[in-house]
Parts: sequence; C-alpha cells; structure tokens
Amino acid sequence: MIAAPGLDAPVELRLRLADLYAAYDDALDEREWERWPEFFTENAIYKILPCENVEQGLPAAMVYCESRAMLRDRVVALRDALVFAPRLIRRVVGAPCLRQAGLDGMRLGASFALFETMLNEPSTLFLCGRLYDRVVEEEGVLRFAERIVVIDATNVPLSLIFPI
Amino acid sequence: MIAAPGLDAPVELRLRLADLYAAYDDALDEREWERWPEFFTENAIYKILPCENVEQGLPAAMVYCESRAMLRDRVVALRDALVFAPRLIRRVVGAPCLRQAGLDGMRLGASFALFETMLNEPSTLFLCGRLYDRVVEEEGVLRFAERIVVIDATNVPLSLIFPI
Amino acid sequence: MIAAPGLDAPVELRLRLADLYAAYDDALDEREWERWPEFFTENAIYKILPCENVEQGLPAAMVYCESRAMLRDRVVALRDALVFAPRLIRRVVGAPCLRQAGLDGMRLGASFALFETMLNEPSTLFLCGRLYDRVVEEEGVLRFAERIVVIDATNVPLSLIFPI
Repeated sequence: MIAAPGLDAPVELRLRLADLYAAYDDALDEREWERWPEFFTENAIYKILPCENVEQGLPAAMVYCESRAMLRDRVVALRDALVFAPRLIRRVVGAPCLRQAGLDGMRLGASFALFETMLNEPSTLFLCGRLYDRVVEEEGVLRFAERIVVIDATNVPLSLIFPI
Repeated sequence: MIAAPGLDAPVELRLRLADLYAAYDDALDEREWERWPEFFTENAIYKILPCENVEQGLPAAMVYCESRAMLRDRVVALRDALVFAPRLIRRVVGAPCLRQAGLDGMRLGASFALFETMLNEPSTLFLCGRLYDRVVEEEGVLRFAERIVVIDATNVPLSLIFPI
Repeated sequence: MIAAPGLDAPVELRLRLADLYAAYDDALDEREWERWPEFFTENAIYKILPCENVEQGLPAAMVYCESRAMLRDRVVALRDALVFAPRLIRRVVGAPCLRQAGLDGMRLGASFALFETMLNEPSTLFLCGRLYDRVVEEEGVLRFAERIVVIDATNVPLSLIFPI
C-alpha cells in the first residue's frame, strides 16, 4: 500500500488498506457478490461513469447507487432477475495510491483492467479505467464511503452487470 | 501482501509472502525457467485447468505435475524438446490475497493476465484467470506446496508451453 | 514491495519504494505529466526499446533521454507541439521486484500492460513489457536514476507519445 509523497501513513494502516483492496477483489473474483455490499458504508456512493463525462463535468453516471441497500438490490438483481449470457469477469488491479487523508477519510486511486470470457470463447479485454475511492473507518473496520469507477471507453458495453 | 479480513498475519510474514510472489514472477518474466521448480516443495502439486472444470467438479487438468522433479522435466522439455514459434509471455499479477492460514499452510488467491507477443506482431491478451496457492515454510524458506492455475477460457490454446 | 530472495530490505525502505512506484503511476494515470520529470534524477537515463534489441545487444532505442531536462522537453512537446488523435493510456503495473542493492542504487524490475482508448472506441491492449529501474536516494528522496522500458512487441506503434 502506497502513500502519496509527503503523506506519512503508518505501516499498520497501509497494510489494512491493502487488505481492504485485496479482500474486495477476492470477493468479486470469487463471484461471492453477497459479500460485496459489506465493503461499503451504509450511505456509500458507488457510481460508474465514462472518463469523458468526468472531464466535461457531466454528472451522468451509468450506474449510480447511494446506499449499501441499493448495492444489495443490485446483487439480488444479478442473482435472480437479470438475463444475460454466462460470462466470467476477471479483475487485475494495480497498487492503490493513497492521495490524501483528511477528516472525511482517505482518498485513494487505483487503475484496473477487466477481462471478459464468454463460453467457448477466448478471453478479451472488457474495460479499463481508474477507481477513485474514499475510505473511512467505522468501529475499527475500513470501508468504502465512495467508489467512483471511471471507465476509459466512452461507449461502454451495456452489460455493466457485475460490480467493479 | 494481504490478509483476509480477520486474518492477522504479522508484517514480516506478509513481506516474505510478497517476496515469494515477486521473485516467482521475476524468474518467469526473465525467462529464467531453471529457477522455476525451486519455488515449489519436493511434492508440490502444480496444475492448470479451465474454470469450467472447477465449477463442475471435473478433475481433468491440462497440465498436471505432482513433484518438483516433474516441473524440472517440463523445463527441460521447454528448453530442448518442444518445437514452437518464438514468443514472449508477459505476466501481470494482481496483489495476492491471504485467504486462510492453517496447519497445512497458507492459502492465497491472485488474479493474473498473460500477454503474448509473436515475432513482428503486436502483443495480445493470451490468458487470464486466477491462481490458487498453498504456501508452506520449509527450513525458513517459503515455497508453493500447491499452485492451481484456473484459466477463464474453456478452449485454451494448445500452447501451454510456459510455466504460469 | 519485494526483495529478492536473500535481499534483506528493511520494511521502511520497501514502503518508500512502493510509494515511489505508486506516485509515479498516479501522476501518469492522472495525466499530470509536469510531475513526471520530478521522479528522475538530474542525469537520469530514460529509454524505451524493444525486447529484441535487448536480446541481440543492439543499443538502438526508440526513445532516449539522458537528463531530467530532456524529460521536461518531452512534456512540453506533448502539451504544445505534438499533433495526435486524443486518446487515453491506462497503466496496470505488477508489483516491482527488488533484484539488487549496491553502491550505485537499487535495481528493480516490474512488468506492465498499457491499454489505449481512442474516442468512441473500445479499449485495447496497447503495449506490454518490463521496466528495468535503478533507484537512488537524493537528499532523502528516492528517484529513478535509470528507467529502461523494454517493450515486448518489435514493431511498436509510432505513437510513443506518452511517458511510460
């Protein structure tokens, strides 16, 4: 885990942040989606939007959740409701960079690539982009109060089914 | 290096595990394949199989080795026997997640992407998937007692020549 | 951050090295290119060359800089002079491996994949390869005295516009 130059995060905090990211990726890579909302605070913001919107200050997001309950709804939809061709999404996430630490939490950035595999097809690059996170401590547990997923491609595939 | 939530691995152990993974990747990325078997225990299990088989409980593996000696044989074959078009395989591996620690060792998971480059061709995504490892300590050295390489694609290219 | 087997780097140094890599990637992923030269020493060597040249001992590099001033020139060119279609480059870099520590600094290796996104196009793999770095300490700050970017593909796209 990584501190910005000048940011002097203690070893223990760095390791706990690294644990948070690794456990999050582990839950998603294992498709244990029911664990996913637990990585967020009660009122967490989770959204996905293309890089272009961020640059132009356009707020429109392709996915927008503003509570853990909404994340749970997404998991239920994913398990029970959504109809989609079976596929695997594999995540490879770079080392997160701790950019800022303040009263409202720690701000981190991390780049990611997602790979998609359809049945009987070779794996392909699905999406890449950057995660902008705000992490807070709640009763001794680190959680995401905010995860903004910024996707490099403008015309993102419709199938943003899975959590990122 | 990363502990599962609740897993309280000491800093030193985490760093040693991180060293193991980095040194392993380094050996393969430098194509110093002769170093590869040394990362495994004498009776290590090393296998590669597609995700589909894992899910359906099918044991069939595309590569199956059950000792360091068999790994050494693979390296000899790779150097001397196999005929294949020259290519580079580049590994990018995410942060490993320590999922469990018990009497039989530590269990870790890590996601990976491999990129292939043929002569005079652009690089392409070759494979992605997840490593399921069991690491043990032998006379002060951490080694893989088990590495199960689970590949996302079902129809894997025949050319699983290189170690993963 | 990762020490070679046998290399016994103290925890604090490992974290500082990890910080250096994360901050470097952060600056480039945020396209804050003006920060880029500051990660290098005054007389730093920065070059990009294909793997094939390295193997055959050919010194020809596609990009060759031998001072921080030359890196600054590249940033100016990138901002003001170069004409190119707008695109995003996303970096995903694996954990660096500390291979050697000596009087002339620390030598590290790390593998990377770069993804390119053109306007209204899906993201694609752009390049992959390996970074060979020498890091030194200057007045309490770690900096790259050398970054050799070795690219797996032989016929690299002309558009090596952005820093790697």
